[in-house]
Amino acid sequence: PVSPSLDFALATVFVSDAQYNRNIHFDSSPQAVRLYLLYNHWAFKVLLYFFIMVNLSLAIFEEPAVFLLPLWATMLVELLCLIVFTARLVHYAKVIPPVKFWKDPKNICIIAVLTLTLVDMIIYGSLEAAKIYCVRWSRVLRPLLLVNVTEGRQLRRAFRSIRNALPQIFYVFLLFMFSLLVFSLMALKLLGKRNLKNIEGYPYFTDYLEIVFQLYVLVTTANSPDVMMPAYNAGSLFTIFFILYILINTYIFMSVFLAVVYNSYKKYLKEEIRQLVRAKRYKMARAFDVLQEQKEGCSQPVLTQASWNHIVRQVRPDITDAHRDLLWSVCDDKNQGVIGKVAFVQLADLLNIEVITLKSRPHPLQNLFPTIYLSAPSRLICRLVQHRGFVIAFDLIILVNAVFIGLDEENPLISNSEWGFLALYMLEILLKLYVFEPRSFFSRHSFWNWFDTLIVLSALIATIINSALKSSAGYTSRQILDIVFVLRVLRLIRVVDSIKRFRIIINTLIRIGPAILTFGQLIVVVYYVFAIVGMELFKNKVKFFDNSTHPEHAYCGNPLLKGHSFAQLGYCKNNFNNVVSSFILLVELTVVNQCDGFASVTHVSARIFFVLFHIVVVIVIINIFVAFVLEAFFVEYSVDKSQLQTSLEKKIEELELAVAQEKVDDNLVNAMETIVNDLTTGQATKPNLMFKIASKRYRTVDALLQRMFEADIDPEDFAEIDESQARSFENPVFDTVLWRG
Amino acid sequence: PVSPSLDFALATVFVSDAQYNRNIHFDSSPQAVRLYLLYNHWAFKVLLYFFIMVNLSLAIFEEPAVFLLPLWATMLVELLCLIVFTARLVHYAKVIPPVKFWKDPKNICIIAVLTLTLVDMIIYGSLEAAKIYCVRWSRVLRPLLLVNVTEGRQLRRAFRSIRNALPQIFYVFLLFMFSLLVFSLMALKLLGKRNLKNIEGYPYFTDYLEIVFQLYVLVTTANSPDVMMPAYNAGSLFTIFFILYILINTYIFMSVFLAVVYNSYKKYLKEEIRQLVRAKRYKMARAFDVLQEQKEGCSQPVLTQASWNHIVRQVRPDITDAHRDLLWSVCDDKNQGVIGKVAFVQLADLLNIEVITLKSRPHPLQNLFPTIYLSAPSRLICRLVQHRGFVIAFDLIILVNAVFIGLDEENPLISNSEWGFLALYMLEILLKLYVFEPRSFFSRHSFWNWFDTLIVLSALIATIINSALKSSAGYTSRQILDIVFVLRVLRLIRVVDSIKRFRIIINTLIRIGPAILTFGQLIVVVYYVFAIVGMELFKNKVKFFDNSTHPEHAYCGNPLLKGHSFAQLGYCKNNFNNVVSSFILLVELTVVNQCDGFASVTHVSARIFFVLFHIVVVIVIINIFVAFVLEAFFVEYSVDKSQLQTSLEKKIEELELAVAQEKVDDNLVNAMETIVNDLTTGQATKPNLMFKIASKRYRTVDALLQRMFEADIDPEDFAEIDESQARSFENPVFDTVLWRG
Repeated sequence: PVSPSLDFALATVFVSDAQYNRNIHFDSSPQAVRLYLLYNHWAFKVLLYFFIMVNLSLAIFEEPAVFLLPLWATMLVELLCLIVFTARLVHYAKVIPPVKFWKDPKNICIIAVLTLTLVDMIIYGSLEAAKIYCVRWSRVLRPLLLVNVTEGRQLRRAFRSIRNALPQIFYVFLLFMFSLLVFSLMALKLLGKRNLKNIEGYPYFTDYLEIVFQLYVLVTTANSPDVMMPAYNAGSLFTIFFILYILINTYIFMSVFLAVVYNSYKKYLKEEIRQLVRAKRYKMARAFDVLQEQKEGCSQPVLTQASWNHIVRQVRPDITDAHRDLLWSVCDDKNQGVIGKVAFVQLADLLNIEVITLKSRPHPLQNLFPTIYLSAPSRLICRLVQHRGFVIAFDLIILVNAVFIGLDEENPLISNSEWGFLALYMLEILLKLYVFEPRSFFSRHSFWNWFDTLIVLSALIATIINSALKSSAGYTSRQILDIVFVLRVLRLIRVVDSIKRFRIIINTLIRIGPAILTFGQLIVVVYYVFAIVGMELFKNKVKFFDNSTHPEHAYCGNPLLKGHSFAQLGYCKNNFNNVVSSFILLVELTVVNQCDGFASVTHVSARIFFVLFHIVVVIVIINIFVAFVLEAFFVEYSVDKSQLQTSLEKKIEELELAVAQEKVDDNLVNAMETIVNDLTTGQATKPNLMFKIASKRYRTVDALLQRMFEADIDPEDFAEIDESQARSFENPVFDTVLWRG
Repeated sequence: PVSPSLDFALATVFVSDAQYNRNIHFDSSPQAVRLYLLYNHWAFKVLLYFFIMVNLSLAIFEEPAVFLLPLWATMLVELLCLIVFTARLVHYAKVIPPVKFWKDPKNICIIAVLTLTLVDMIIYGSLEAAKIYCVRWSRVLRPLLLVNVTEGRQLRRAFRSIRNALPQIFYVFLLFMFSLLVFSLMALKLLGKRNLKNIEGYPYFTDYLEIVFQLYVLVTTANSPDVMMPAYNAGSLFTIFFILYILINTYIFMSVFLAVVYNSYKKYLKEEIRQLVRAKRYKMARAFDVLQEQKEGCSQPVLTQASWNHIVRQVRPDITDAHRDLLWSVCDDKNQGVIGKVAFVQLADLLNIEVITLKSRPHPLQNLFPTIYLSAPSRLICRLVQHRGFVIAFDLIILVNAVFIGLDEENPLISNSEWGFLALYMLEILLKLYVFEPRSFFSRHSFWNWFDTLIVLSALIATIINSALKSSAGYTSRQILDIVFVLRVLRLIRVVDSIKRFRIIINTLIRIGPAILTFGQLIVVVYYVFAIVGMELFKNKVKFFDNSTHPEHAYCGNPLLKGHSFAQLGYCKNNFNNVVSSFILLVELTVVNQCDGFASVTHVSARIFFVLFHIVVVIVIINIFVAFVLEAFFVEYSVDKSQLQTSLEKKIEELELAVAQEKVDDNLVNAMETIVNDLTTGQATKPNLMFKIASKRYRTVDALLQRMFEADIDPEDFAEIDESQARSFENPVFDTVLWRG
């Protein structure tokens, strides 16, 4: 009853969802599919992220504000954001069946947040109009939209990891608290009656709750060794108490927290990845069901190459015909012209493997001036530039440059030498462009070439502007000078790429970069909540005066801080007076928890806020972050050492070998062009084409995670399908891969 | 040519070595074997440890001393120690072949240390006699003796782990230093010219080396947020620099250090354990070769039960005949009366499994007064005490007691209530002794019963002494009161045992206890070296005055510290003036690295000492410690969750089941006596005997380590033998274990 083009549209959506691991169970009616395609359109997603950013950044303009805007302006913008989110939600509701929509806690959460925000806005607006003080409490809910409205799978997964680890963490935390309380009681009994004074002259360890708090802070190491000095001065034996405390609570318990978090993290992530893989296979199987044909001579339904080509062209319009032929040859390894379900299901993973199309191509100068370019001096230059000594020479120049940067730049000799270095760096880039094919030099994968060129060019422009300003207007712009300095120093980073040992570590760090961004979002969500609460609790309690001669400067504008170490150490700018300074303060609190100033200006119970922050950020989130870095490095180490290959990589490994051999035969490696997604190249020159797998690169965080846990996933789990498709099919094995010329 | 008794002696030594994982390749001549047995005698080992302790503790009595002894006294004691160590070494040299002796770097190290110490003593003694100042530099070498002279396998293994991890750590450290240097350069260029001042009024970030040091300290979080406050006050944008720095260097690099250390630790430890297992099998095979007999009807040489019994009796004279019969039945599973090499090799592991002999025995009171003990009221008491409510009631009493402890004990009501609580605790213990068989109650494995009784009895004695002193002499001894308080608070720990979730965590912590002691030794070795060097560098630069009215008290006796934060914060007692305060200071430095005071009183370069300490202790040793705790917890989690059993435990599992069933039949569990190593019990009452495996306990750290990595050791590796015995034999499988009645 449905037209073939609609069939193809549906299949395309399934394959595309499988490829990008989207997990939306949309209605398969033609209209819903069309709406669904619109829902996934990049423009809508960008718009959504934009409005979430706008909504979050409203905190900058609301009281207490960095730049105060009138209430009606921020309210209006917030209303606009709410409308956009509602529209997005309605769109989503149209795409999936109503039952599924109301079952998903995510949607309930969004609706609740939107309603609550609206209610709060109305209450706040009317009370404000009546000049009654009230709190915009719904601002705390804003980050929930970042978590739930977007397709932020990584972020939601991180939250789920944390939620799943919580029971385990909770029991260890109880034991930790018990240990803390027992130690505090002992401290009270041992030290409370000795009439000791701390350095500020107050009684030392006489109040139980104060001791509990001080010992908790000792776990964060923030008040070490101050907290033990009065006891140590009274008698050396008391240090045994503190050393035992530090050993048990700071070292052992904190390690146990890491162990518990790491263990749950691994366990639940593995389970999630397994479900992801199952869902992917299910979607591919549904796509196959839509497209399958019954051919004579085949007992099973099959897919023709034409349909397959059509689908791949729809899903990935950017890949070349040759690349598509390569993929087909991998699927149809027996060269039958049709493939079964088993081979088709692999397509989602195949499409995620980044294949680089290599094409041998001579240097453009060789085409233009062949005699000159191939002359003896020109060849000498090429050999020189390709020599290892060339790299070493420029590394040495960079090191000399580092010394010159360190010296005083007001010395004319030093400041003029900068021109020399810039010239040398320009020369290096030009020489490399002379020797290597330009398009290959600036290929998408040549990170360091791009880095070099951008840094050197920007430094050149900034230096020229700077000296133009200096000679014409006679003054130096501090901002431009700062940029010049930063660019100069960044240039030095280049050195690490020359040393192989460093490159491995750096590459691992770059590879876990996207995942670190997920943790960045997580941190932003938590920080935002704490910043909003903190601003309500502590705003304008501590003030910073730019002018240090201001009479209130010495005590941060709050008489309660007179003589307090908080004011004495000049921490006045560490305050909750606006969202930016709150964020900076929260970063400081993450590193070292110091909050006595805020307890002094408000109430002792304010410490609860800071302890809570420490528990959430340091004990939970930082530990999850450390667990992630550990796991990523272990994967890297085991891959680098044992040459362990994932099943996906293995499949194409043989092809890569074939390419490598061809390369050796052609001996054209240096003149090779790397084109990715080159649509314009004619396909007539096929023998010059080669394929290379960017095996060490992973497009998505999911792929990295999948690789992290793939070894642990039972291979039989691949075979299981979630719902209606209970039929199991084998995991295809690609023992022999044919090369179609 | 050798007599059978000598054969047995040699075999015994091999088996015993295999059991305790001793790795000494002794000469197999009768005399060497006799010497070797003497070498392993516990008295000699205790003596050796005693002299090592004496040698190390000489630092307390040498200048700068806690208790100064004359030079001749310490010199004489040290000479005595050297003689003892030399004697031990000579003894060792007689035991093993000379070639092996000179090949072992351990022995070379000992000889070098002994020689150097002697030379240093002579030089120092003569220079001191001539009143010329000189340094006793050889004291730094003393901890090397702790590492090398003793059979401190764990300690040497920890050192080897560290040595093996060093290359990896080194490359990451270089990259970290590069990052530090680049960030420092950027800080110099961005902030150096802005004429900023830090809180003490000195120029801020103008000197490159100073910046490098400050940023290094920021990694330890010791100077956060002070180091960034001047820049933050000048402009909020500068915090981006610091936040990036903290993210990269404090969080990412420190996690990478942990990952690298953890990875190497696991890898090399696994290799060591594999070699240990191989060496063990080799020794067992040699023991078999000595004892083997050729029986008719057997193609392979075998061992008779008589020889086997003889050997086991020699190696473990403490186990009962029934236990030995059990072990034999495990080895000789086909009931042939003889066993082959394969079964014999298992013996070393079998002996290491702790088997508890259970024997049903009525309560002694039941024997004495059967009518009273079995009367209805007595039975009611038994039921009450065994009820879960009894435990809960006493947990509540403990919690009430905790509140009372927290209240002011000078209130007579509170201080008298203590007698009530003590009476309740005594009642609890007496009731339990009434209900449970006393020997079972105080069995070796009932940790908490021992703990309770000891704490309550000591508290009772201390409280009685205290009140006796108070009523007779009219004064309260502070020391006795302290002991009373500590005991009272320790009693509270009892509560955790009642909650199952806590018990799992606590048991894991108790189980990794011995291994933590190894790290304790490691820390002592490193601290000792740094303490000795620190004392030479900084002794008497900073002085502490007990009397706070002393004129020099305010600046720690050093005018250079006038107005310095070190003196202002009252850190004067943190000094290197003797070995005890040095150790306490080093603990503080491990937690938070603060050393500006010492750089001020000596030279800026003194900071190198503190940075070096941080690198060695925090980056290397603490990370190895964390890695160990992580690994131990993962093993616990996987064992607790998946019921994964090691191959050794599995073998006896079926037997344990048999015991458990028997238990259920007899229904005598509560009246059961747990006897370990009960030699006096007649063996006639066999049917009452039961065996239980203390499967969760590991006698040696080696066993825990072996269990940690056993899953990863290739089972085929068990088969390989190091040296001459290249013949491989199968790993025995004990599918069916017969019970010999």
